[in-house]
Parts: sequence; C-alpha cells; structure tokens
Amino acid sequence: MIDNLKQEKIDQIPSILNELDIDLWMIIEKESDITGDPVAEFLLGTGVTWLSFYCFFRNGKKSAIIGSLDIEKFKRLEIFDEIFTYKNSCREDLLRILKENNPGKIALNYSKNSANADGLTYGKYLQLIELLEGTDFISRFIPAEDIIAKLKGKKTREELDRIQHAVDNTLSIIDKLTVFVRPGYTEKEIARFLIDERKKTGLPASWDEEHNPAVFAGPQDTGAHSGPTEKKLERGHVFNIDFGVKYKEYCSDLQRTWYVLRENEKKPPEEVLRGFSVIKESIHRAFNAIKPGAKGVEIDRINRQYLIEKGYEEYPHGLGHQVGRSAHDGGALLAPAWERYGNLPFIPLEEGQVFTIEPRIYLKEYGVITIEEMIYINKNGAEWLSIPQEELFIIK
Amino acid sequence: MIDNLKQEKIDQIPSILNELDIDLWMIIEKESDITGDPVAEFLLGTGVTWLSFYCFFRNGKKSAIIGSLDIEKFKRLEIFDEIFTYKNSCREDLLRILKENNPGKIALNYSKNSANADGLTYGKYLQLIELLEGTDFISRFIPAEDIIAKLKGKKTREELDRIQHAVDNTLSIIDKLTVFVRPGYTEKEIARFLIDERKKTGLPASWDEEHNPAVFAGPQDTGAHSGPTEKKLERGHVFNIDFGVKYKEYCSDLQRTWYVLRENEKKPPEEVLRGFSVIKESIHRAFNAIKPGAKGVEIDRINRQYLIEKGYEEYPHGLGHQVGRSAHDGGALLAPAWERYGNLPFIPLEEGQVFTIEPRIYLKEYGVITIEEMIYINKNGAEWLSIPQEELFIIK
Repeated sequence: MIDNLKQEKIDQIPSILNELDIDLWMIIEKESDITGDPVAEFLLGTGVTWLSFYCFFRNGKKSAIIGSLDIEKFKRLEIFDEIFTYKNSCREDLLRILKENNPGKIALNYSKNSANADGLTYGKYLQLIELLEGTDFISRFIPAEDIIAKLKGKKTREELDRIQHAVDNTLSIIDKLTVFVRPGYTEKEIARFLIDERKKTGLPASWDEEHNPAVFAGPQDTGAHSGPTEKKLERGHVFNIDFGVKYKEYCSDLQRTWYVLRENEKKPPEEVLRGFSVIKESIHRAFNAIKPGAKGVEIDRINRQYLIEKGYEEYPHGLGHQVGRSAHDGGALLAPAWERYGNLPFIPLEEGQVFTIEPRIYLKEYGVITIEEMIYINKNGAEWLSIPQEELFIIK
Repeated sequence: MIDNLKQEKIDQIPSILNELDIDLWMIIEKESDITGDPVAEFLLGTGVTWLSFYCFFRNGKKSAIIGSLDIEKFKRLEIFDEIFTYKNSCREDLLRILKENNPGKIALNYSKNSANADGLTYGKYLQLIELLEGTDFISRFIPAEDIIAKLKGKKTREELDRIQHAVDNTLSIIDKLTVFVRPGYTEKEIARFLIDERKKTGLPASWDEEHNPAVFAGPQDTGAHSGPTEKKLERGHVFNIDFGVKYKEYCSDLQRTWYVLRENEKKPPEEVLRGFSVIKESIHRAFNAIKPGAKGVEIDRINRQYLIEKGYEEYPHGLGHQVGRSAHDGGALLAPAWERYGNLPFIPLEEGQVFTIEPRIYLKEYGVITIEEMIYINKNGAEWLSIPQEELFIIK
C-alpha cells in the first residue's frame, strides 16, 4: 500500500493526461538505486532492479512490466491494474501492451528544460528504441515535461501542509540564530549551530548538508552554492544564510540577512539599510505581480529591473524556483530568458504552485544582502508561506 | 580538497583512457540532487545546479565548465586544471575546449548494459546535441561504459579494505541473529533485529532499508526483492536473509540460510541437507573457475548446470554481480546470456574486481536455500572476502 499522498498524486494523472491530450505516460526504470527516475520515486516510493515500465493511460488504466523478482513488492503497492513479469526479456509484454492500447501519443520522461522531468537515461532510451524497432510507436514519443510540471506543481492540501510545516520549522530555527551569533564566529560555527538545531527537531536537510546552510559572512567572491568556511564574522559586516529542512519529505528553502553593528554604532549604515529596503521592495513587487497565467520571465523582469534602476548589479541567477519534494522542483521558473533556463521562464504560472522569491544584491564593503521567501499561488495571486523578513536582523 | 580515495580513482583515469584509446571522457551533469550521474558523485563527491561538463583528457588534463555560482565549490575540490564559468550559456566554452583539444573519440556516460555507466539523461544528451549542432564532434561520441567498468571494477587497496570491513561487520551481526532467533518470530521481527544491530555499529544499510535485510521464512511465492512480512518462522522451515552494510561508503551484500529443527528432530531432513550441500558445492565450483580473463557467462553456466544436473530448478537471476560503492556495481556480471543482461556476461573478468556469488534453490516444503558470498579476483583467481558458510545454521 502506498500512502495517501502518493495515491492523491496518482489519482491526478488521468485528468492531467486528458487536459494535455496524451494517451499514455510511460515511466522507464532500471537499477533505481543507481539511476532512479525522480518521478518514479515520487509516485511509487520504491524501485526496481531490471528494466521496468510503468504505464499510465489516459482512461485511468495502469499497467506495469517488471522483472520477475520484483513482483511481491509491486503487488503490495496496489497501484497497478495489471502487472506483467519477465525473466529473460520484456519485449513481448511491452509490444503487447502497446498494440492492445494503441496510444496515439506516448510521453516519456525526458526534458531539455527540467531536471525533474528528465529521469530517462540515454542508455534506457536506446534500449527502448531497440525493443520497439520496426514498429511506429517510436514516432509517437513526446516529452512528459508538461505532465510532470502539472503533477508536481499543483500541490494537494496535504503537500501544502507539509511545506508549511517545513517553512515554520526553518524560521523557528533561524530565530534562534539571532540570539546565538556573536562577532568572531566563523561561517562553519554558524552552520554547525543551524545543523545542530535542525537535528534536534529530527528533520532532515532539504538539500545536501555540505551546503545547507550556506553561510556568507562579509565581503566575498564566493558564489551562492559553496559551503561555509573558516571565515570569521566581523563587526560592520552583513551576513546571510540559505537554509532549508524537510518535513515528511517536503522542503523549505529560505534566506535571511543580518548586520553586525560596529562598536558605538546604533544602527546599520545607510548603504546597508538602503540595500535591504530595495531587496524587500523588489520582493513585494514580484509578489504583487504573481498570479495564475503570468509568466516567470515577466515576474523576474519586474524584480530585476527594479534593482537595476536602483543602481545595483543584476544577480546572476533566476528570481525563484518551485519547491516540493525537491528544494528545486520543476518546471516553470521565475527567471530571465537566458539560454541555460530553456523554456522554463515562459511556462505560465498555475494555481497550486509553490515558489521561492530570492533576489540579491552585493555591497562591496559589507557583503551579500539577500532574502528568500516562499509563496503559494492561489486563484487570484500569491500568498506568503514564510513570514516575510521586514527588518534587517541586527547582531550587537 | 577531495579525499585520498577519490584522488586515487581520478589518477587512474589517464591510463584507462590510454588503454582504451579514448581521448576525452566527458561527464555531463545538471541539478545533481535530482538526476545526478552516479560516476560524478563517485569521483567528485559533490554536484552542480546548471548544465556542467567535466572533461578528463587522455593526457591527464582536466577541465570543467560550470555555472558561475558553483565556482568556489569547484575551486576547493582542487581537481580541475581549468574551470570555466558561465552565466547565460555554456556553448562558447564548450566549443572552445573541444576545438582546442580536438579529441578523436569522446566518451559519454550512456550504456544499454550497465546502470552505473548510464548517468547521462536523454534530455541532457539532446541539449548537448543542440549545443554542438553543425560541428562534427557529435559523430565522435562513444559510450563510456568500458572506462567506468575499469574505474569502478579495479579496486584500490583502500577500497578493498573498506569492503572487507563492511563484510566483516555484516557477518558479525549475522552471528548474533543465530543466537536471537526463535520459532514464532516474524520476518519483520527478524529484520528489526538486524537493523537495530546494524544501527548499533553506526553503519548505514548498503541498499534501501525497506528490503535490507530481505527475510524469507519457509515456503513462499515471494521473490528475492520484497520486504519482510508478518509471516512467522515455523519449526521444519528453512529461512534466509539478504543483508548488507556500508563501511565508509563501500558495500557488503551477503546471504545466509538457517533451518529450524522440528520438536524431537536432531538434524535437518535429508532433503534440506542435500540442498544446502549442493548450493555450497556449486559456489565452490564457480569460485574455482573465476580468474582474470574468464567470462561471467561461463562462471554462471558452471554453477547453473551443476544445480540443474542435481535436479533443481534454475534460479531466475544471474549468479553474481560486482560490489563497490553500490551493492550492485557494474559492468561485468556473472550471468546467463539473457537479453536483460545485455553484453555484461560477456565482458572478461579482471584482476581487482569484487563479486558476489549467490545461487539459490527452492524446496517446496521447506523454503529457499541460498548463500551469497563475496570474493575478490587476484591475478591468479578468486579469494574469499566473506568466510564462506560451510554448515547450515540451526535454530533449536
């Protein structure tokens, strides 16, 4: 038996296939422990050893072809209406299923745009082509990226609750940091504190622990994805963290910024206050523009343009990404039309999606000012999942 | 800095490329947390967010192209001689590196045979083709499966030590099970005991905990890959486990078999003793035939034929697989020439490889009799890594 959440997601499939006019969605797995398809893990929560096919038809029928030794495991899942097992070759079963159902369009998990929709390895694709050689099923393949974007993007109530718990826990831990931190602490010590506090809650990190939290103390060349160093937090410096936890497999991903007062300083310097205030305003402008049907490239532009107008250098990444079972959940992105983002900034936003908003600016003398909030898209616009950082946190 | 073991593996690359007459091995990654290439994780121990290229040249040169925000992390690895970063598109850097070095053969991580060598997703492959459109580099692609088979197969001293520790720890835990188990315990209780004992050692499971250990008590339909159930161990039944741990990231994978004496029974029935003795002898026959240059299909046949001659039904899987950072490590397999195994049974065995030997027979009245040993191939033949199970374990 799978849990309710997986069942809810599987139940969404037929209507999504219908909406997209796709007859069959076929997920192909092999040695899931080594090169598993992230969507198979998301839907089934288990894997296989031999080349296996999970077929979801538009009419709701679900068929699987698996190696003979996986049969008990698959029976227990109670997902599939029919399960075919093989010992030597899966060719016969695969051809029979395709001939019997004769799907017009067959969606496979490959995508030039979204990693979440790109679980099919090239070797497995070549195997599939070999198995279907001489048939015209090969000409019916299309990428499943739209299916996966809808399935993962459109959160159920249960998914949203879990994300909210992850966000709330993250912000509680961050609150404790403000009390803990003193000038002279290293980035590593700050990271250690957050990791220890997270472990007390029993929650796992929402991305690899080596970079979660990321901690940036003061001026630096360092990019946003590197791990904490022995660098010490000094008075007169800005510091920030990028931190997230998982609650029942669902992620948070948040950033906050602090300033460490100099001796005799009553408040942060004007330049720092202005930077923080511009970041905050830029987030509100993006927030206000988000609604179903808007495109991520437009939201990103509103935010980016505002920062540029205020005289700051453009940040070298997209404004925000979706969050779900992964901290970076596909497909639609809030991002500029850079080649590396493919078509993702042009996919219209939809009700039910969860996004981060995370612009940043760099002050050469002080460090990186950045806030990352998380929002939910309802039918009219955005709702906060995180309580937004309205004031720069101060360390005395 | 990467650890010594990763450095040792990276240092093996140029001579392997030379041996295979390959000029460039290019690993392509993107969103490693979601669809990471298992070999990239094996060599670097870290991942990336944007489309990235790790180029290992035959002459020892190592170049990387990564998204700008990953630069600090990659500098700290101290692996690459040159690192190019990009914000918008990696096309220019990629073309320049290829033109400057002009490699004749370019190996990519795709394989119809081995999951370990199949880390390149089809979407990333399509992106690569798009980036190189109009050049003839595309015609120079070959699968990197031979590189990866040699790199992962040929264990260094350090790797072998770690595997030996994993094996020794596993066998110690299994010894405790013989003292613990009583008739009436369920498969789940037996699994719980092994998991608890493993956790006391602080070692992680070498494959997913839901099926590690697998426990099979008495006669059943169940395949070898399903999780333990509420089924109770009865007197007069055979039971077995499939269990493994990781020691510093390196795996063990072992199976052992027990018999539960009936009231007033002094020793197991003849049928059970004979089955165990045939399995044991079949393992020794395979062990004696293993040497560098032999093919897995021959070793499998020696074992399989012996069981068939003795009147048992053929087991529905290969005789053995390699073990390393994954419990199922590729490429060469000890397996029959079944389509699902591709070319893996035909790759000659090499010195330095670690294999399991795991035949099984099924006795309708009693249950599954199976032993899984682990061996190392030296220049003359096989060496035991596990102390072989010579006697059927007895529960009174």
